[in-house]
Amino acid sequence: MSRLRFRISMSLDGYVAGPYQSVDQPLGVGGRRLHEWVFPLAAFRRQHGQAGGEDNASNRIVEESLTNIGATIMGRHMFGGHPGTWHPTKPWAGWWGSNPPFHHPVFVLTHHARKPLVMEGGTTFHFVTEGMEAALAQARRAAGGRDIALGGGANVAQQYLAAGLVDEMELHLVPVLLGRGERLFEQVGDQLHGLELVRTVATPKVTHLKFARP
Amino acid sequence: MSRLRFRISMSLDGYVAGPYQSVDQPLGVGGRRLHEWVFPLAAFRRQHGQAGGEDNASNRIVEESLTNIGATIMGRHMFGGHPGTWHPTKPWAGWWGSNPPFHHPVFVLTHHARKPLVMEGGTTFHFVTEGMEAALAQARRAAGGRDIALGGGANVAQQYLAAGLVDEMELHLVPVLLGRGERLFEQVGDQLHGLELVRTVATPKVTHLKFARP
Repeated sequence: MSRLRFRISMSLDGYVAGPYQSVDQPLGVGGRRLHEWVFPLAAFRRQHGQAGGEDNASNRIVEESLTNIGATIMGRHMFGGHPGTWHPTKPWAGWWGSNPPFHHPVFVLTHHARKPLVMEGGTTFHFVTEGMEAALAQARRAAGGRDIALGGGANVAQQYLAAGLVDEMELHLVPVLLGRGERLFEQVGDQLHGLELVRTVATPKVTHLKFARP
Repeated sequence: MSRLRFRISMSLDGYVAGPYQSVDQPLGVGGRRLHEWVFPLAAFRRQHGQAGGEDNASNRIVEESLTNIGATIMGRHMFGGHPGTWHPTKPWAGWWGSNPPFHHPVFVLTHHARKPLVMEGGTTFHFVTEGMEAALAQARRAAGGRDIALGGGANVAQQYLAAGLVDEMELHLVPVLLGRGERLFEQVGDQLHGLELVRTVATPKVTHLKFARP
């Protein structure tokens, strides 16, 4: 069966986004510092339609995380902004631009029903109002045997983690402090819900900690 | 000049002790899970007067952290319990037993003046009421050119970190969640105060992240 795979960059003090996330600053104040390690990598650049880039240990980790993914699940905040701010006639397509970097079906958990949004490049956003398990079932069907990426944000990740539905988690631990913002590990209790550390790859900029079911 | 060196075990969710720390449970509920990696190591056993034990990558990290230390600074809580619980006639010597594992002068930050407490094995507890910089100055004199260990707990570590007085920090990141307790990185802001990641040693049980001034 296809697995639910989660990867996220986290600061040393546990934050996965800075405070005051907005359309202008989707990562929150200071949140960009969590991702600076990924921007130069060849895998990241290719995903965003750019040539070149670095090939190193981190690049191979990112390559792996992008491989064999057939669908993505994300929360409404990660999709982009609050529905109250959506344009009344022109449908708000999140902050992903006209050609989002998914290139497969994306299932957005929301309380606001909405028709699917077909984007360029193979990405279609589906809006799921029936909850996390329904979203997972729909994503699983859409993935056609491939795995499902759990995109975040933190709140959605916490729900899937606490429910024991995450099969693989790749934490990119970045040696910085954010001091405030959104923490990943809140409301998930004192257990990793069946996940164990299975691989660590250390680089000067980031430590990759992979957790999976044994 | 002698350096102020700090090492601590931290859970994936940032806790360095569980909740409800007490004389019976000095590490708090669940806090023992942070330290299980260290108990089998030869360096730890020798420090506590026991022979044998494992020699592996983690053992070498612990060996290093115990080397060239001439004094230790700790907070009142780490020394042991609240002064209100101290015995009225028999001086409470913390939870360290008659032969504490320091074997050098230890400076306890407290608001309660008290005469030095001479223990077996070379450990003397000195009680410092003039604040963190005074404690550091006294420890530095006592260390006689060797380095000073910052013992914790979290609150004391935060004060020295935020003041930019820590020269080296070895984080033992343990792949567990505690869910609650005492977090290390609170009230220290969004900077590492001059420290940078200089070495990572990964093992299945723990990831050692060493920070130092470049």
